[in-house]
Amino acid sequence: METLSKYRSVKRAYGLDEIALVPNRTTVDPEDVDISSVIAGIRLEVPIIASAMDGVVDVKTAVLMSKLGGLGVLNLHGVQTRYEDPSEILKKIGSVSTTEYVELMQEIYKEPIKPHLIAKRVQEIKQQGGKAVVSSIPQDAETLGPIVQEAGADAFLVQSTVVSVGHFSSKFESLDITKLVKTLKIPVMVGNCTSYEVARSLMETGVSAVFVGVGPGAACTSRGVLGIGVPMATAIADVVAARLDYFRDTGRYVSIIADGGIATGGDVCKAIACGADAVMIGSPIAKSQEAPGRGYHWGMATPNATLPRGTRIKVGTIGTLASILHGPAIYDDGTQNMSGALKTSMGTLGAKNLSEMQETEIIIAPSLLTEGKIYQKAQSLGMYHN
Amino acid sequence: METLSKYRSVKRAYGLDEIALVPNRTTVDPEDVDISSVIAGIRLEVPIIASAMDGVVDVKTAVLMSKLGGLGVLNLHGVQTRYEDPSEILKKIGSVSTTEYVELMQEIYKEPIKPHLIAKRVQEIKQQGGKAVVSSIPQDAETLGPIVQEAGADAFLVQSTVVSVGHFSSKFESLDITKLVKTLKIPVMVGNCTSYEVARSLMETGVSAVFVGVGPGAACTSRGVLGIGVPMATAIADVVAARLDYFRDTGRYVSIIADGGIATGGDVCKAIACGADAVMIGSPIAKSQEAPGRGYHWGMATPNATLPRGTRIKVGTIGTLASILHGPAIYDDGTQNMSGALKTSMGTLGAKNLSEMQETEIIIAPSLLTEGKIYQKAQSLGMYHN
Amino acid sequence: METLSKYRSVKRAYGLDEIALVPNRTTVDPEDVDISSVIAGIRLEVPIIASAMDGVVDVKTAVLMSKLGGLGVLNLHGVQTRYEDPSEILKKIGSVSTTEYVELMQEIYKEPIKPHLIAKRVQEIKQQGGKAVVSSIPQDAETLGPIVQEAGADAFLVQSTVVSVGHFSSKFESLDITKLVKTLKIPVMVGNCTSYEVARSLMETGVSAVFVGVGPGAACTSRGVLGIGVPMATAIADVVAARLDYFRDTGRYVSIIADGGIATGGDVCKAIACGADAVMIGSPIAKSQEAPGRGYHWGMATPNATLPRGTRIKVGTIGTLASILHGPAIYDDGTQNMSGALKTSMGTLGAKNLSEMQETEIIIAPSLLTEGKIYQKAQSLGMYHN
Amino acid sequence: METLSKYRSVKRAYGLDEIALVPNRTTVDPEDVDISSVIAGIRLEVPIIASAMDGVVDVKTAVLMSKLGGLGVLNLHGVQTRYEDPSEILKKIGSVSTTEYVELMQEIYKEPIKPHLIAKRVQEIKQQGGKAVVSSIPQDAETLGPIVQEAGADAFLVQSTVVSVGHFSSKFESLDITKLVKTLKIPVMVGNCTSYEVARSLMETGVSAVFVGVGPGAACTSRGVLGIGVPMATAIADVVAARLDYFRDTGRYVSIIADGGIATGGDVCKAIACGADAVMIGSPIAKSQEAPGRGYHWGMATPNATLPRGTRIKVGTIGTLASILHGPAIYDDGTQNMSGALKTSMGTLGAKNLSEMQETEIIIAPSLLTEGKIYQKAQSLGMYHN
Repeated sequence: METLSKYRSVKRAYGLDEIALVPNRTTVDPEDVDISSVIAGIRLEVPIIASAMDGVVDVKTAVLMSKLGGLGVLNLHGVQTRYEDPSEILKKIGSVSTTEYVELMQEIYKEPIKPHLIAKRVQEIKQQGGKAVVSSIPQDAETLGPIVQEAGADAFLVQSTVVSVGHFSSKFESLDITKLVKTLKIPVMVGNCTSYEVARSLMETGVSAVFVGVGPGAACTSRGVLGIGVPMATAIADVVAARLDYFRDTGRYVSIIADGGIATGGDVCKAIACGADAVMIGSPIAKSQEAPGRGYHWGMATPNATLPRGTRIKVGTIGTLASILHGPAIYDDGTQNMSGALKTSMGTLGAKNLSEMQETEIIIAPSLLTEGKIYQKAQSLGMYHN
Repeated sequence: METLSKYRSVKRAYGLDEIALVPNRTTVDPEDVDISSVIAGIRLEVPIIASAMDGVVDVKTAVLMSKLGGLGVLNLHGVQTRYEDPSEILKKIGSVSTTEYVELMQEIYKEPIKPHLIAKRVQEIKQQGGKAVVSSIPQDAETLGPIVQEAGADAFLVQSTVVSVGHFSSKFESLDITKLVKTLKIPVMVGNCTSYEVARSLMETGVSAVFVGVGPGAACTSRGVLGIGVPMATAIADVVAARLDYFRDTGRYVSIIADGGIATGGDVCKAIACGADAVMIGSPIAKSQEAPGRGYHWGMATPNATLPRGTRIKVGTIGTLASILHGPAIYDDGTQNMSGALKTSMGTLGAKNLSEMQETEIIIAPSLLTEGKIYQKAQSLGMYHN
Repeated sequence: METLSKYRSVKRAYGLDEIALVPNRTTVDPEDVDISSVIAGIRLEVPIIASAMDGVVDVKTAVLMSKLGGLGVLNLHGVQTRYEDPSEILKKIGSVSTTEYVELMQEIYKEPIKPHLIAKRVQEIKQQGGKAVVSSIPQDAETLGPIVQEAGADAFLVQSTVVSVGHFSSKFESLDITKLVKTLKIPVMVGNCTSYEVARSLMETGVSAVFVGVGPGAACTSRGVLGIGVPMATAIADVVAARLDYFRDTGRYVSIIADGGIATGGDVCKAIACGADAVMIGSPIAKSQEAPGRGYHWGMATPNATLPRGTRIKVGTIGTLASILHGPAIYDDGTQNMSGALKTSMGTLGAKNLSEMQETEIIIAPSLLTEGKIYQKAQSLGMYHN
Repeated sequence: METLSKYRSVKRAYGLDEIALVPNRTTVDPEDVDISSVIAGIRLEVPIIASAMDGVVDVKTAVLMSKLGGLGVLNLHGVQTRYEDPSEILKKIGSVSTTEYVELMQEIYKEPIKPHLIAKRVQEIKQQGGKAVVSSIPQDAETLGPIVQEAGADAFLVQSTVVSVGHFSSKFESLDITKLVKTLKIPVMVGNCTSYEVARSLMETGVSAVFVGVGPGAACTSRGVLGIGVPMATAIADVVAARLDYFRDTGRYVSIIADGGIATGGDVCKAIACGADAVMIGSPIAKSQEAPGRGYHWGMATPNATLPRGTRIKVGTIGTLASILHGPAIYDDGTQNMSGALKTSMGTLGAKNLSEMQETEIIIAPSLLTEGKIYQKAQSLGMYHN
């Protein structure tokens, strides 16, 4: 604990950028490494889940993620459940100017969500052989849960920027997660949270999985606009500690999914070494040729309509979804062949499976910019001349 | 405490950039959040005060800030009290070249302050329905205090870069704050300070509010030119600790206003989480269409006429004052809809009012530049090509 | 130890960029400083070893490094042992476009390694008066060891990104280093490792030298793609601690070679001050006129063919190999006259030989980028105008 | 102390960029602040000494520095004592290309030092009313000391990058500082050092002043080329601790001069707050119109002729020497009116004289670059567009 004032002690939290993994006495042939994970009863050959965002997951990519061994979560509050044919809308989002974009988004998300489209999307995913996992905001979870269960969904994710077990609102009755879990027959997952205490109380509601991550990076709007955020290494490790204690007390294992600020294969490896069972990633998937965002990525509208949390980012297209998950990698920045990176990392670290990887030694090793480094980088880019 | 030498222990101080706020077990609907604050007997619906600087507050913006729920403090040593019609002067400041600027400023501020203009400005603000709060440097506070009280001001701020209870000068008699507070009937506020000890001794003079913040950022001239500065998170927390102890000893609650280096909604949230009752902001207000600076922002002349503390910065114009305080926000960098950001942040953190927000959990989570981040940023700006 | 969660304590590791060396009561005339070292029975007048990489060491540079007082290690899995005349291949690598490069590399390294070329290269080095030290990956070490010994090699390096004493593979039998050391008459060196425990167990196999360094810098692919890496100052110091304990227990001195992220004379000095007996460097040598890479530098193919660990970097050419090792230096960035830098540093620090240098006082003194520094740098580059 | 390995503990050292000064209960009118200092028996109205470098001090600037209340030290191993008329040489240094420069410098400094020119320069300074302080490297101090004393010098500085009390050389007999101090009647000053132990042993030789600072900044060649360096805040504080203990033991006060990495008024304030009695600055003086370097600044040749420690840096010209020391300041970066900055800082901190300033509270407050800051900076420079 550090000291802020005589009455205020504060904890130092660490981001994935500040840690690194340490090899030990044994190594394993990457081909003998098992990276599979079971989340909410669904076996993933690759512990990577595509984010419930409109530029990332539609029916096609949900199916494709499943076939590639991962999972894609479809957002029930996006364009897929508001429009019979969202493809025109999605094309438009990528083509308008930045100033037109704000207005367009307000327009698009005014269209109401249609229960029959929710059922339809779930069925489309199932019919094409995918695992159908869908997400709702807490406010609508009680209404939408039965619909998606009826339609054949495999699991249900209740997700908001920050989820709590005690939401206060003078207008809406807040969600009783315990009741929701008991009502539904399909597994319920919930997120996001960042601390031991909140994770523990979420686990006690009976959910199958807890998502970790709030504003983990400085680039994240939550940090700049709201001041809120917990760096991921600390957040994952704290929630994993809660899972361990909960498991010891109850014998029930709750999966932890790291969600936020995971951009490279190295980040995936570190998140799992911190104790996560899987990672949820957005922009790396948005960069695939098949992504509905067509090279763009944007967040969702927030309850506060006057705060712009849905900024559009041009991420570009770097290859097929298959190449992002399984390679081959052309770039050496860790954005491609994430499963291969995880296998090679685990082999190098001597971890035969995710359980062993979750116990890998971690060190604090911030890769801070030093003068020397920026100079070398600049030189290699031809920016400086001696 | 860190060690500088065997005889010198030094404290590590933290800036707002180095902290983040942590969600807990409960959340609150932003619409049920109360962000009001009472400063020097004035109820603010939004705890945001515009700085007493010539590019930020004139009669019009003081009135407008009041109407928008905040407050604007008029500087008694600026152009408003030196010129009958300062508009021509203000236009000129924004139009001259950088080299002409230095000379122009020396010229402009040579014009003496006129007591009748002081009274006039106070009355103008009151007549148009605003709260009239004005600021003076300590040297002139005894003379100007009665004038502004007479004219109907609601409160009086005595402010210099660093205020002390024991100023030594061989030329001027130094201000006796205790006497000033007793003499005036309107509330007296004082600043700026940064430490427990100074804050405590200022509180003991009977002032209503203490302003915190000296050279908090590296960009601040105080740091580069004078070597002086205390990062804001530590400064606010230390002064708040003094307020707490003073309250326990006397039962009198002194308001704390964070002043300096607050640029975004996230900064506002963090300053309050550190214990502030309100924030004073300059450049975010100078960016409004209504700001007297017309897209420019500059500091005040200092006692030492040969040190250039009044550099002019082009801040640009990003929207109406209403949009900066209440949205809608077009940019996602936290510079617009600061009240909405504060409400959403507090709701997300489960704080129903400022008192609860002042007890939010804080972590040390520096958003340092890492190689990865600068690379991503540079890529997104098209600066690097693999 | 820092705290990541209630169940997870993590060590803070330091890079060479984060340390500096401290002068003490005595100084020595640089001309009276002895920088010689004995590695695997080979006396080096300069404790600098060129990396076993295709762009760095061929027969010519191996001989030249020996004559200049250092050493060059020839990679047995590179182009030198696949092609009778590798010069055309090497020229091609530097001339193709970035997109053609990936395919070209896959093509080039498909050509099988030829035992007769291995013997031939060793003999060529010996005939021209060089010390012949060659490297193999662990998988082939048992096969290639006897061949190179037969051909007259002076020492044999078994090297992979991360070496372990217990490699698990369902396909290949893993290398028994103890057996290899016993079988061969020439000294065996092994690497790379980063921790006390692994180093200690490698020493117990009877090897002559241990190489330290895995993904030490943020620029290193291991860090970004795999999340693996240990900053060099900590890694060297930990392995040196193992060497010290092993020496106390057995009386046998195992040499430590720092390998990775060493780019300047200052880095060489620091690595030795951390306890290394020599350093292995790649890109500084690749910048020499004689380097086979012709201004380019690239890593080796990895076991996982779908991960791009062999990216080509344009390093340019800054002078003769002699000037890089012994000066004269034209640039002041520490990339030339590394032996002169080491002598001057040791003299300044009062170290007469490497043993004394290994006990120099080290401080933590991160040369982080501050606003002031970047501003000064930018100004000197003409990027900012006041 | 931090831990590098089980056998190695390392101290964290702090640079001037990492500290800031904290206001306390009192303030003083800057006009009532006394910034005078006595160094080697010479009273300085301004505690600023110009570095003994060819681009900084010649006879004219030595005289001018004295008249402005400071001091300039003339380097006995530069062009002033090698050439009857050095002005042509100095002009040439600023006009040749970078490649020609290296050769030119080797050429220029081959010319031998002439004893009669040494005497002449000292006399010229004295005749024009300046204080004549000159510097020699340790090797020549015994020879040159009597010459400069004879010529009327006020004090003698023996300076090398790192000075020690026990220099070992097989060729030259090393300097006995104690003997030198006893032999000469004028005060002897010595430097540079960075630690308690070395400073203490230097004080015991009887010198009047000790200079502190070795490779304090990352930009410094000592750090990059030699790995050597101690950040200034720690270095000054450690040497000041030695001075305090030495004073307690002997009653003799030895002055401490901070030399290296001091670029702004803020740096001057911080160096004195760390305990220095004066600062020695190079590039800030090289930027004056009167500087012999004509907008260029370069280091001296080193004993090792093959290491380029004398790189030429274009510093530009920002104003008269008078404006740099006493203002008026046009720029707000702290490079002008250093005495005014020091007075204002001391007044703000409540320090009436240097002794009080040396006890000001210091905090650790690194002004690190954060994403937010670089973004703001970039925006203000028009580099980013939302």
